[in-house]
Amino acid sequence: MHTKRIRDYGITIGSLKPGKLNNIADVAGVTVGHCTIDNEQHKTGVTVIMPTPDNIFENKFIASSYVLNGFGKTTGTLQVQELGTLESPIALTNTLNVGLVQDAIVDYMVHRCASEQVNLQSFNPVIGECNDCHLNHICERAVQKEHVYEAIANATCNFEQGDVGAGKGTICFGFKGGIGSASRQFEIDGKTYTLGVLVQSNFGKTSDLTVNGFPLGEKVDAEINPATEDKGSIMSIIATDLPVSSRQLHRILKRAGIGLGRTGSHVGHGSGDVMIGFSTAHKIPHDTEESFQEFSFINEAKLSNAFYAVIEAEEEAVLNSMIAADTVVGYTGETRYSLKPYLERYLDEIR
Amino acid sequence: MHTKRIRDYGITIGSLKPGKLNNIADVAGVTVGHCTIDNEQHKTGVTVIMPTPDNIFENKFIASSYVLNGFGKTTGTLQVQELGTLESPIALTNTLNVGLVQDAIVDYMVHRCASEQVNLQSFNPVIGECNDCHLNHICERAVQKEHVYEAIANATCNFEQGDVGAGKGTICFGFKGGIGSASRQFEIDGKTYTLGVLVQSNFGKTSDLTVNGFPLGEKVDAEINPATEDKGSIMSIIATDLPVSSRQLHRILKRAGIGLGRTGSHVGHGSGDVMIGFSTAHKIPHDTEESFQEFSFINEAKLSNAFYAVIEAEEEAVLNSMIAADTVVGYTGETRYSLKPYLERYLDEIR
Amino acid sequence: MHTKRIRDYGITIGSLKPGKLNNIADVAGVTVGHCTIDNEQHKTGVTVIMPTPDNIFENKFIASSYVLNGFGKTTGTLQVQELGTLESPIALTNTLNVGLVQDAIVDYMVHRCASEQVNLQSFNPVIGECNDCHLNHICERAVQKEHVYEAIANATCNFEQGDVGAGKGTICFGFKGGIGSASRQFEIDGKTYTLGVLVQSNFGKTSDLTVNGFPLGEKVDAEINPATEDKGSIMSIIATDLPVSSRQLHRILKRAGIGLGRTGSHVGHGSGDVMIGFSTAHKIPHDTEESFQEFSFINEAKLSNAFYAVIEAEEEAVLNSMIAADTVVGYTGETRYSLKPYLERYLDEIR
Amino acid sequence: MHTKRIRDYGITIGSLKPGKLNNIADVAGVTVGHCTIDNEQHKTGVTVIMPTPDNIFENKFIASSYVLNGFGKTTGTLQVQELGTLESPIALTNTLNVGLVQDAIVDYMVHRCASEQVNLQSFNPVIGECNDCHLNHICERAVQKEHVYEAIANATCNFEQGDVGAGKGTICFGFKGGIGSASRQFEIDGKTYTLGVLVQSNFGKTSDLTVNGFPLGEKVDAEINPATEDKGSIMSIIATDLPVSSRQLHRILKRAGIGLGRTGSHVGHGSGDVMIGFSTAHKIPHDTEESFQEFSFINEAKLSNAFYAVIEAEEEAVLNSMIAADTVVGYTGETRYSLKPYLERYLDEIR
Repeated sequence: MHTKRIRDYGITIGSLKPGKLNNIADVAGVTVGHCTIDNEQHKTGVTVIMPTPDNIFENKFIASSYVLNGFGKTTGTLQVQELGTLESPIALTNTLNVGLVQDAIVDYMVHRCASEQVNLQSFNPVIGECNDCHLNHICERAVQKEHVYEAIANATCNFEQGDVGAGKGTICFGFKGGIGSASRQFEIDGKTYTLGVLVQSNFGKTSDLTVNGFPLGEKVDAEINPATEDKGSIMSIIATDLPVSSRQLHRILKRAGIGLGRTGSHVGHGSGDVMIGFSTAHKIPHDTEESFQEFSFINEAKLSNAFYAVIEAEEEAVLNSMIAADTVVGYTGETRYSLKPYLERYLDEIR
Repeated sequence: MHTKRIRDYGITIGSLKPGKLNNIADVAGVTVGHCTIDNEQHKTGVTVIMPTPDNIFENKFIASSYVLNGFGKTTGTLQVQELGTLESPIALTNTLNVGLVQDAIVDYMVHRCASEQVNLQSFNPVIGECNDCHLNHICERAVQKEHVYEAIANATCNFEQGDVGAGKGTICFGFKGGIGSASRQFEIDGKTYTLGVLVQSNFGKTSDLTVNGFPLGEKVDAEINPATEDKGSIMSIIATDLPVSSRQLHRILKRAGIGLGRTGSHVGHGSGDVMIGFSTAHKIPHDTEESFQEFSFINEAKLSNAFYAVIEAEEEAVLNSMIAADTVVGYTGETRYSLKPYLERYLDEIR
Repeated sequence: MHTKRIRDYGITIGSLKPGKLNNIADVAGVTVGHCTIDNEQHKTGVTVIMPTPDNIFENKFIASSYVLNGFGKTTGTLQVQELGTLESPIALTNTLNVGLVQDAIVDYMVHRCASEQVNLQSFNPVIGECNDCHLNHICERAVQKEHVYEAIANATCNFEQGDVGAGKGTICFGFKGGIGSASRQFEIDGKTYTLGVLVQSNFGKTSDLTVNGFPLGEKVDAEINPATEDKGSIMSIIATDLPVSSRQLHRILKRAGIGLGRTGSHVGHGSGDVMIGFSTAHKIPHDTEESFQEFSFINEAKLSNAFYAVIEAEEEAVLNSMIAADTVVGYTGETRYSLKPYLERYLDEIR
Repeated sequence: MHTKRIRDYGITIGSLKPGKLNNIADVAGVTVGHCTIDNEQHKTGVTVIMPTPDNIFENKFIASSYVLNGFGKTTGTLQVQELGTLESPIALTNTLNVGLVQDAIVDYMVHRCASEQVNLQSFNPVIGECNDCHLNHICERAVQKEHVYEAIANATCNFEQGDVGAGKGTICFGFKGGIGSASRQFEIDGKTYTLGVLVQSNFGKTSDLTVNGFPLGEKVDAEINPATEDKGSIMSIIATDLPVSSRQLHRILKRAGIGLGRTGSHVGHGSGDVMIGFSTAHKIPHDTEESFQEFSFINEAKLSNAFYAVIEAEEEAVLNSMIAADTVVGYTGETRYSLKPYLERYLDEIR
């Protein structure tokens, strides 16, 4: 049984409809797996977004990234921007384990390609991170290669949200943050398209927290040990089946910042805010003799639905990352509370 | 007597205090002048932001620009980004008069430099624009060189807002938009710093309009001829006396998008959203034998106040651009209503 | 009869073959027109690159721009980068007439669209420039709207090079520079593709001039009034019929800098070096009900020919801009010599 | 005893003078260490550039990066660009060991900071790479954490060049490539400033190789097993003691591409060409209560010397990477020859 999400409280963000699962896996083929590390010293983990069950290195997806605030250690964006393609699962972890997780993802793909007779000599892993140092003894760098493999093995459509995987130790607006996801659907020419967002939330000053336009943070700031600065980062992974060019996808990613702003973010100096997106609509073969490839892309003037979708899904994903999280006590005894009771108290005003 | 602004209705945006004028001219030295063209066919004009009464070409300011959505014709940003300096007044007008206004600003600066014995052989004018084609017969390109000179001559600290100057024919969330401004102040080490924003607003879908978190657009959408798309553009000019590098200023400009989002913008495809900023804290001489120049820049970790300031001032400037505007009937008979009565009706809920 | 170009001297740049005309008009549909202003005070003008005889606003081309050094006043690149399309002729002129020329191009397109029943309400003109202030009394801003119209009317495949149009007053490596052009062709799957470059050259320190690897500048530095700094700018317009995305085109444009370097440029601080490119392979309709558009793009791994083509054509275009130019005496009596006799003296060593 | 470098053959690149060592360590404080892995299966390793003997995390340097071609896996550039600072040693390795090396550099810095009582909770490691898969069995990922530590321990001013460290298995223009370095000095106001470059060279098509303007590649193409494509990458690390802002440094880095072009590069699709630079002139404290920091930056108009310096040093560093390398036989028996005998044969023509 899943923990409740923001929509289960009768709170509706925006006007577009979510997909069936209301998570990033509503984009067909996308799955998400966690491995959570939860012991006295360590509250951290790994979350892997698998863009497809197929070999993503052999058949790449069109992709883009957008750096809203580059105080972060995300890897892989140079090549994503140059070539406009994604050839790797996307893994999230804590700041000081990015290298280890990158190494494990390379290991995974080298072996997978070897076993599937795909010739891999170069490979661009995409790893994102948040800094969970308040609850997790980050300098001990608890993540191991096995954790990455376990997260990959756990990948499913029906993944948990909240204080799991790479979200085990993160803090959002002074409450417990974590992994959150949401999706939106819209029709073009009678066909339904889906856009999904997954976030690792770790940002925000308590007094700034806004839930569906309601200034919840101000109301409860005095009751908890508040976050008084916007530090920490938020990673946003965005998937869609809409056929878009990397340039168009970049435009979509930029709008995610608007959704972020609606939760109360002011994109603090210390918050690495990075968006990474891909479209499953076209496959770019790693190795082909063909000199040209055919693409179908959406008419630029009809991108509006995708813009609303990403803004709404981003806002809802952040809220889900909080509402799905339970209270966590960190390795120094610092406690970060679940948003649930505070939200429930103000439900009538928020709805 | 000035028309009322959003704060005069008892609505307070954010938590930082505005400067004395609560406009961009709270940054010492900055003035703004309008020339409004208002006849049967034409609802357009020119607004000029003078960064300083001194010759800005002779002593430049540190500057930056940020393109949130590049569907726009703003000129001058290439050099602003490369050199990190502003050497021109900033002029705003309608889309199809950018060239004419640029030519006039060059003319102005060539003559001013000649009369002030400053050697000008090259010059980078900065011109922004919105498309006022719904109310203004834009293809007749009504702006003339004299209008630019008049706007410069009119420059003052206590400038009008609303349907004036380059804002005469613009539309915002389906209501009459225009020129709006606001400022914020904060202290560092006991000294007060100011950041001001001026916008030319011409964007937004009516149902998206949000005033201080209240979904006013949804409430009144059925009553007016609503804007059903987010098209048109918004120019944001940002001034500060905080000593910042061009890189730091760029970070500040990026946050203006968060303020924009809080008014309900989803940064529509057709909306050219460009931020241009400058800091008055240092002067970069055009011509100097000195091999090195000394600068003082703010500690990166203390940028947070400036981030809040630009977000709040951007949101308030957009609201001011609407609330200060009167209803305007365009050249085809299309009417764009003042926001005032609609705001007043919901005042209790908004405050 | 045309003046001789670098290839007429038996000097072959690179290994790819030029097109029939060895200029940018080898890309089918592209034409170029000049209007030269040549009187005692003024050595300047306008050069217009018409991407197609059709209405480029109604059916746009995929486009991109690259800023190698942004000390320049080029307009239109914001929108070219955001939307990846060109909807305007590209005009070149002197630095202080960019606004006037932009205004004239808007005027031209407003009228053309009106007469062709194309609905134009917004329009993104692309104007480039070099600073010809050493030979031309630039502050008198001699270019008038009629000159722009005349340049458009003169557009042809078989255009002049050297000290004509926007190149009348420019200086290159201390010699007379101007307009130069070259093209390259290559085959993919048995079909011939063409890439052409046109430059407005106005850069370079005499002692740096390198012709096909030969250090000609060093040899002749003492004989002429040498340029001792790399100031001034170079505009590069690049056309191709290769089907490329705007991202791929951007990659091609970046390589033009390598060709520039081979002429001896060190991309001086004061030299605004901007590349603007378009592909004629696809038409993007301004107004369409279609929700999706089909594209064919080249396999990324086969871009190599286009990279060589742009490097070679850029180098040759710069050399042509010089060798096709005659000696010009400027308004102050300053003389900039034709490269011809100096090149001829060292021909054996250069070939 | 060091192997000979290009200058030892009487070949002088450019006109500025090198520093005493003619390598990147001429910038005071900079050292370089290698660890070479050389066995039957593996020809690879690690090269570490230590920007200072002090704790670079505690006192950061102003920094920037420039991506000439982003087909590469370099990490750390997001934060370098956002904050304009370097807080890490820079490590180079092979493509598939970037994660491992990143993890080791994090390990190193976590421990160093712990022992030096510097509070590290977040850290941005900078790792570059080339793909040495032709000579090295890259998929076995031979680099281990100890190799990184060893490279750090080996750091010295008088480091080896050629087929060492991260350059053990790289190929340049079909010849054996590797690590190369060079420096240039220039005076401003009677004070000497230094700029140094270190490259990991792994790019280029044999027939394109140009040595000091001489087309050596064409001459010898038929004699060796030539590289027929420009694939592989080149990393350029650039250090200077000139006081520059991150924006100014970015301008310097961009010019390195010109030096690269002069060796014959056409910046092939498959070649990840990334420049990373830092200035030792200012220290940015990690942790300070000071609200403002004073800087001295060079007058923009006087950057020219630095531009020439980086172009010349880049060209010479690439040549040194080749001329200092011995012939290496790879794990499949593929042989990549030293450039030495080929250069010697044409010495008279090259000088």
